[in-house]
Amino acid sequence: MGLDTSGRPRTELGTGDAPGCGPLRGARQSGAQPLRQQIYEQVRSAGHISRAVLAKDLEVSPGSVTPLVSDLLAQDLLYEVPDESQHHGRGRPPVTLGVNPGRGLVAGLKLSDHEHSALLVDLAGHPVASATLPRRDDVRSVESLLDEVEALFARLTEAAGPGTPPILGIGLGMPGMIDHATGRLRWSPIVSDRDVDLAAAVSARMGLPVSVDNDANLLTMAELWFGRGRSLSDFAVVTIEYGVGLGLVVDHAPYRGGHGYGMELGHTKVQLDGALCRCGQRGCLEAYVADFALVREAPIALDGALPPRGKVLEALYDQAKDGNEAAKAIFERAARYLAVGLANVANIFDPRRIILSGSRMRYDYLYAEEMLAEVPSLTLNRPPPIEVNAWDDLVWARGAAALALSDLTPRLLA
Amino acid sequence: MGLDTSGRPRTELGTGDAPGCGPLRGARQSGAQPLRQQIYEQVRSAGHISRAVLAKDLEVSPGSVTPLVSDLLAQDLLYEVPDESQHHGRGRPPVTLGVNPGRGLVAGLKLSDHEHSALLVDLAGHPVASATLPRRDDVRSVESLLDEVEALFARLTEAAGPGTPPILGIGLGMPGMIDHATGRLRWSPIVSDRDVDLAAAVSARMGLPVSVDNDANLLTMAELWFGRGRSLSDFAVVTIEYGVGLGLVVDHAPYRGGHGYGMELGHTKVQLDGALCRCGQRGCLEAYVADFALVREAPIALDGALPPRGKVLEALYDQAKDGNEAAKAIFERAARYLAVGLANVANIFDPRRIILSGSRMRYDYLYAEEMLAEVPSLTLNRPPPIEVNAWDDLVWARGAAALALSDLTPRLLA
Repeated sequence: MGLDTSGRPRTELGTGDAPGCGPLRGARQSGAQPLRQQIYEQVRSAGHISRAVLAKDLEVSPGSVTPLVSDLLAQDLLYEVPDESQHHGRGRPPVTLGVNPGRGLVAGLKLSDHEHSALLVDLAGHPVASATLPRRDDVRSVESLLDEVEALFARLTEAAGPGTPPILGIGLGMPGMIDHATGRLRWSPIVSDRDVDLAAAVSARMGLPVSVDNDANLLTMAELWFGRGRSLSDFAVVTIEYGVGLGLVVDHAPYRGGHGYGMELGHTKVQLDGALCRCGQRGCLEAYVADFALVREAPIALDGALPPRGKVLEALYDQAKDGNEAAKAIFERAARYLAVGLANVANIFDPRRIILSGSRMRYDYLYAEEMLAEVPSLTLNRPPPIEVNAWDDLVWARGAAALALSDLTPRLLA
Repeated sequence: MGLDTSGRPRTELGTGDAPGCGPLRGARQSGAQPLRQQIYEQVRSAGHISRAVLAKDLEVSPGSVTPLVSDLLAQDLLYEVPDESQHHGRGRPPVTLGVNPGRGLVAGLKLSDHEHSALLVDLAGHPVASATLPRRDDVRSVESLLDEVEALFARLTEAAGPGTPPILGIGLGMPGMIDHATGRLRWSPIVSDRDVDLAAAVSARMGLPVSVDNDANLLTMAELWFGRGRSLSDFAVVTIEYGVGLGLVVDHAPYRGGHGYGMELGHTKVQLDGALCRCGQRGCLEAYVADFALVREAPIALDGALPPRGKVLEALYDQAKDGNEAAKAIFERAARYLAVGLANVANIFDPRRIILSGSRMRYDYLYAEEMLAEVPSLTLNRPPPIEVNAWDDLVWARGAAALALSDLTPRLLA
């Protein structure tokens, strides 16, 4: 891992097919923000854009854009670039606007059971440095989590080197029930404390504004800001990890549910009175698809030759690849139930696309062609395209950075 | 049916607990509409409101509200009412603003297999007249549907009597796949034609602007504009009729799915390889809950003493009420699967409330306490409150009228 921080890589962290970052949306979806903020966000989203196109995209007169742009230029929040591509003949080339990346940085942090990761990006969303912090796989108190955040952050600033712009905010995510709006952590599988004001605790320790969210929403933010979801108004991100997560985007913005704790696709029921789930209920999707569900049936498939704990799933997968029918049957059933889960997302939410994301994507039985081929037979209408997005491990940190940028913008422009 | 149209009843059609109509939302959710439209909609939603409170609710200065209000008053779109409740002592009482109901009317039409219904409301959302048109239960062409629309409309205007303000628009809904944005009908169980530009066809026949939607979305609009959803940002409406419908509200606005044809809760899978559904797939919620699913098992429960077609479901229900264990078992299984379906809506969408609505609510086995008590054991988090809303038969027409009002507003203010 680790980036070459000398050359400010602009694309290799998957900033997508457009030079900017943030949702690509028209003015009609831009909400009730002040025009000043709409201008700044539209420029960031476009990468580089002329004043004329900016006014057109926002459906306002060029005259109303001009003074606000001048103001943003005077504050060093935007800058002007000569547009050589439009330069024909003599004279000054036309200029386009860009977000001044050097005004500051934000850090995206993803906390996990066995490794934390972090990414520093500038205000235009370009990655500046990254860092990881391996750790022992256990449940810890919030206090020791804060120590780890501090250590991870130190690695990140060290990787960025001296002379970098100031860090203006932190986005932080982890698995569990975390309310972005209030900053509260209700519970997390990697933390022993319950009902903690996580955003306030991290902010007090680090002396910076902090936004928090769950890991499925970080992936959703990464897709919405840097990935395949940039130009989609409504889509779903499904993550298969330790559990099964779901993130929804409605009208170019993350939808976090009516209670703020996110969606629980993993605990939708795919079989009444079905297999027992970790949560204590029966027939949950996770009870067929998650790690523990696959491992549960491994002793039979592996015929007693059980590898050490923590290695069972990989052994099972290798056996399936080698033609062990019982091992294959375990993955195939999981894939069928996953197809039911995805079909139910399509039936209930009707997204324009479903993006499968996360590190378990390496168990390709779960998204085998047979599984994907089953989804249309489980949805009434033509199902949305289902894509597999095999990001690198920094995807969550990238989503956390998008979260920080998104929440920073109103403060920055205030 | 039929209203006393002489006295302009203001509340008996369930206009809810607030005197206005439309979503009760704050300025932050009001989207990118011009302030003029935000003002008009806020006044309609409030019923009556002072200029000062209006500016406060919209989070703008009183100075920016004043000229726009004057303009709306000059155009007879708003009017002023003395607020006697705030009148202490001498002098003129303070005035509040209201939407001028007399500027025009809109018609809401619900087309159905055995009876069409219609409601005329003024611009403040108050019902003015209603009408119904019984019809033979068969599938018809769009052409003969248009004849029926014309006949229904004639009854409606006759019920309103002479001297009513002009009708400015029509909202129309029916079961099926109908795209509100494009006005197209993809298919409907009551129409033989497929892929028709329904809004244009009705508009050409009636000479008025027409908005169309499916019947579940009409119920959702009725809840959002007149019912229990007025003050809720995110909620779900589940209808149990001929099939099982779902309407979602996100951020005080109807969410119609990424493809515009609405959600298909009835075809979410509650049992892999389960009971055969009308749609040809297996394990759909409808295959356990809809009329045809209940009737399918009736011959055994009724022991061969089968009533005439069309009366089977009622006979089955009566038998269950009389203690016939087999008949009870049919309703009880349906209720358990309905609980699974509602739990999956809660898990995937996390609404603040689920409202059960529609005429099949009379089969109270389906929403018996036992069923509702099962939902928490099927959701990971505390499930949202589940309410049963037993509207009268005009609820769909009321939703259609809300649809017409909602789409009329920008035209009216243009």
